[in-house]
Parts: sequence; C-alpha cells; structure tokens
Amino acid sequence: MTDLGDLQCPVPKGDYDRVLMAHGGGGRLMQRLLGEVFFPAFDNELLERRHDAAVFALERGLSSPRLAFTTDSYVIRPLFFPGGSIGHLAVDGTVNDLAMAGARPLYLSTGFILEEGFPVADLRRVVQDMHDAADAAGVSIVTGDTKVVERGHGDGVYINTAGVGIIEHDLVIEPASVRPGDAILINGDIARHGIAIMSVREGLEFESAIESDCAPLADLVGRLIAEGLAVHCLRDLTRGGLAAGVIEIAQASGLQVELRETAIAVRDDVLGACEILGFDPLYVANEGRFVTFVPAEQAERALAVLRAHPAGEGAAIIGQVTAGSHPGLVTMQTVTGTSRVVDLLSGEQLPRIC
Amino acid sequence: MTDLGDLQCPVPKGDYDRVLMAHGGGGRLMQRLLGEVFFPAFDNELLERRHDAAVFALERGLSSPRLAFTTDSYVIRPLFFPGGSIGHLAVDGTVNDLAMAGARPLYLSTGFILEEGFPVADLRRVVQDMHDAADAAGVSIVTGDTKVVERGHGDGVYINTAGVGIIEHDLVIEPASVRPGDAILINGDIARHGIAIMSVREGLEFESAIESDCAPLADLVGRLIAEGLAVHCLRDLTRGGLAAGVIEIAQASGLQVELRETAIAVRDDVLGACEILGFDPLYVANEGRFVTFVPAEQAERALAVLRAHPAGEGAAIIGQVTAGSHPGLVTMQTVTGTSRVVDLLSGEQLPRIC
Repeated sequence: MTDLGDLQCPVPKGDYDRVLMAHGGGGRLMQRLLGEVFFPAFDNELLERRHDAAVFALERGLSSPRLAFTTDSYVIRPLFFPGGSIGHLAVDGTVNDLAMAGARPLYLSTGFILEEGFPVADLRRVVQDMHDAADAAGVSIVTGDTKVVERGHGDGVYINTAGVGIIEHDLVIEPASVRPGDAILINGDIARHGIAIMSVREGLEFESAIESDCAPLADLVGRLIAEGLAVHCLRDLTRGGLAAGVIEIAQASGLQVELRETAIAVRDDVLGACEILGFDPLYVANEGRFVTFVPAEQAERALAVLRAHPAGEGAAIIGQVTAGSHPGLVTMQTVTGTSRVVDLLSGEQLPRIC
Repeated sequence: MTDLGDLQCPVPKGDYDRVLMAHGGGGRLMQRLLGEVFFPAFDNELLERRHDAAVFALERGLSSPRLAFTTDSYVIRPLFFPGGSIGHLAVDGTVNDLAMAGARPLYLSTGFILEEGFPVADLRRVVQDMHDAADAAGVSIVTGDTKVVERGHGDGVYINTAGVGIIEHDLVIEPASVRPGDAILINGDIARHGIAIMSVREGLEFESAIESDCAPLADLVGRLIAEGLAVHCLRDLTRGGLAAGVIEIAQASGLQVELRETAIAVRDDVLGACEILGFDPLYVANEGRFVTFVPAEQAERALAVLRAHPAGEGAAIIGQVTAGSHPGLVTMQTVTGTSRVVDLLSGEQLPRIC
C-alpha cells in the first residue's frame, strides 16, 4: 500500500552527502537534488516552469518571436547500440526537447568531452551520426567545443548539445496549461530504447534485435499544431519512462492523471526482456515517444494526425486528466480493472541510458 | 628558423588514430581534429566562420534581430583555485564568447556530468559560484540537465554551458571584418589564469597568491560599441593564450598581425612562475582578457574606453594588422628590436585549464 502523503512530497528520507548513481536516474533522488541544490541557486521564473525547454520572448511586446532553449548531456554506454548511437541521441534528444515546447528546432551547439585514447575512427562515426540526425531533423550544428580529459577520467566520449528553436504559433504548451478532461495520447509502444541498451549490456539475444525507438519528433509535433489542435502539453518519455513523464506533469499541474494499462502497447519481445531483467516497462526510457495532452473533444482528431505520420503509426489514447481525488498523482486502471497509484522510483532502473 | 610553408598549413605531420591530450590544447593538433573530423561533418556556413559564437538572424529581413549562440564545456582541475572556480568559469567563459560576437548575453543553459561520490557540499559551492557569476554578468540560467557517471568515469564534475545573446547594433564583428591598418588592443596583463591553476597543481608558493583573471567581459564590450567605435573583431584569449587568439584571426583574415612585445604586460610574479614552469606567457590561458581590432584612427579612443572600465584598467595597444609579406601569420617585434614569427604550439602547455 502506497503512502499518499509521502507521494505528495516525493523526496526520499535521509541525507546524502555524496552524489549517487541514482541522482541521475530521473526519479525521486534526482528531483530532490534539483529541488535542493539547483533550483534554489538558479532561481528564476523560466526554470521554475520545469519544462523540457525554457521559452522566452526576445523582446517585450506581442510581436516579438518566442524562442525555446534547452540542453542535455549524453553519457550513454555502449556508444553504439541497435537502432542508433550516442550521436543520434545527442541530436534527437535535444531536438525533441525543443519540440516538446512546441518549437521548430533551428540550431544546435555541441560540446565534446573526449577521453585520452578514444579511437578517432569511433569519433568519426559519432560525428557522422550527428550529421545524419541533424539532416533528418532539419537543424544545423553551428557552434561547438572540444575538451580532452586524461585516460580514466571519462568514458570515451560525452556529448552535450544545446538547442534553439522558434515558436511559430500562439499556444502555451507547458504543464500549467493542462486542464481536467484533457485526453492523453502516446505515439507508439514503450520501453524499446532502454531494453535495446540493456540487451547489449547484458548480452541478451532475441530472435531479432530490439532496436531503440530513437527518432526526431519535431516534424510530428509540427503537424499536430498545424492541424489547429489545442495542444496543452507535450512530454517526451526519456529517463524514467512513461511513468516519470506523466508523474511530473501531474505534480506540476496539480491534477490527477488516469492511465489505462490496456491502452499502453509494449512489444512482446520487449516485455519478455523486461521480465528477464526485472524491469517495469512503464519506467524504461524511450527516445522517440511522447505524450500529448489535448481537450477530450479533439482526441480522435489528434489520434488521426499522429497515426498518419511515420513517427506515430502506433499512436493510442492512453488516459485522461481529472480533477479527481488524488490531485498531483498518476493512477492506473490495470488489466484486471483495479486502480493503483503509479509512483516515482527512488532512483533508477537503468543507469546511463541517455 | 621556422618553415613558413609549414606554418601556412598549420597541421602536424603524422596520423593519430587515438585522441591525445594535446587534441584539447588549442594548438595545431586541435585545429587538425576540428578540420578533419568536425568541420567536414557539420559543414555549414555559420560554423565555417570559426568565431567564438555563431551569429544568425531569426528570420529573413533586415528588421529581424541577430542572435549569437555558443557553447563550452569546462573540465578544469582543480575545481577551486585562487580567484575563482569551475562555476565562475562556466558562466564567464560562455558569457565572454557571446561578448566576442558583440552580443549582449541573455540566457544560459547548463549541463552537469557528476561523478558518483562527488561531495554534495562541493556541488553546492559550484552552483552558488555559477549563480553569483550569472548575477554579475546579468544573465539567467534558464534550463539545465544533470547526468551521473560511475566512479572512475569522470572527475568530480564537468560542466557545459551554452549561451544565447542578442546583437543590438549593426557591426559585423568577426575575423573577416579585420582590415589592414587595424590597431590591436588588449585589456590587461596576460597569463594569470593559467599560472594561477598551475601554481596550485605544482604546489608553487609566492609572496601573494597569483589569482586568475577570470571575469565577465560583456559589459566592457558593450561600452566599446556604445561609444560608436567601429569594432572589427574581438577575441578572448583562453586556451592557447594571446598567441593562439591572434594566430587564428591572422589565419582566418589572411592578413599579417604584428605584435610589439614591449607593449604586452606580464606581472613579475607571473613571469617568474612561467620561467620556473617552462611556459611562454604568450601561450598561457587567460579568462578575462581579450583583443579588440579597431581602425588605427580610433585606437586612442578605444584605449580610453577600455581603461575607464574596471575590466580594462591595464589596457594597451599591442600591435597592428598589415597587408605585409607574411599573410596569415603573426610576427612579433621583440624587446631587442628583431622580428620573429609567433607559431601555434603543436599541442598544449597546460592540460585542463578551462
């Protein structure tokens, strides 16, 4: 039985005076590190919105274009995996964070931290993958930086990208725009990215390789907006998976999110791997999946737009927002018809997944 | 005797199939890595300008504001040093890159790569220093990311920042704007940052500690522009020091840069430390020093503007640009009156200086 009081203050008890792996896992410990160390120091209104990207107008006045700005560092291992590489991730991940703010991605920066001894041939592959991913997403990598650290102080290559995008519509796409009655859609099956990575690490073999779902989402998001849908919120489902994504939105909006387990697709081979590895697919990272919050009456139209796009063929309506009895929480109607609270994990199931 | 033919193609002979520490040093090997691996893959007009920041208009048309966008990762050790910390550097370094494009810095992103076991108290100090530096520079840190890597795969904390600034004038400040006859000014003495770091690493003691010159430069650059000076180019003198900064501009502009050794200030204690450590101060990193290229007839006025600002009290005119017999090279009139070519180092004197 979950203690709801504890859930509403999702910070583990106990003090930590050193950084733990779990501090990077997208769960409660990370929320606590952000809440106790970063947010108080960098206190400002934009950061407080806790969105995937910061959104600001360049100048005062309604005619000034709004920009989105975001960053992510990529420390994934292995560097190359079925369906992609750190190079694809470093572009798609940041492009997708811009897309989640409703922005059209324009420009990326990139910072490399190379470990002494890293094969230049691998670096060429990574850089080529970044080029290909940037091309596919329609963005340019326009500025960069390279640092080298001694052997034993890195792990081949760490990549940071930051991205700038432009918002070409009047929607305010953020957790605070979510309303009771909103329908929640997803663009496909979950948990493939994390399982693709873990299968390589654990040496699991399947009839056919499980490939990461890594993909750029900005074009699909652009279609939703171009169709005139009143998109209230978008969230890509990376670290912490579908669970962490919707929990953050429930917390930020103060509303209850109700998911329907039967509507959430997981491929059989992915589910099998989850069972072998002891993972709950709800918490496994994706790199090409996102949820869309729209008014209930637009749900079917949004579903049609998603399904008409290659990145949304497996789209489904997976739940709704209510002003229910559990404000700020996510509940799940299970296969058996019962309802349970979906809680944040304390740490993470999968270290260094992105 | 330097082989000029070799200088004009400043790439060391020999193949490297693994990354070396020197690839991060701001010298020839880094130029080669950029030229062979990064620039061809990320081929685009903005990157080709090889400026500290990429500059672009948001939309077509003269009325659209121009933005500057830049990034740097910071891997300095030790994390805390006389005159600053990785936190100050991570803000000032990126603010200064925006300033070198003539932009007013607006927003920063930050990505942390934390090593498992890093003391949270140190993280708090670093984050507080970033806050203080951002406050001093008038920028907001509006979006961020945190990753954790296993013990032995990092070095406490690596920080990336990216920055967005706005250009509020019509000058085109970049190497291609440099003209024969331009005067070259610097805003103070050189080599203090690098020596401050190396003194800590090597356990050198002086009568008074040598403090890093780490400082934000955007306000001072704003004054130069507000005074109506025709600023042609700006360059901060970080990795590779004054030498690397002016060599890059000479190469990019195809003009000859002539420096006067007697005009370049180095503090006695810094010079003493350079002699002990075997460093040439021309190549030692600064974090609060930059060169300004203006038409010769504006040199004295620019000097007065620099000297009137706390960040430019030690300013001096240190050379000029000519259409001389050594296009693309930097020459130095030495104390003894002879002239020598100032060449890029192959690698670096000082690893992990920023």
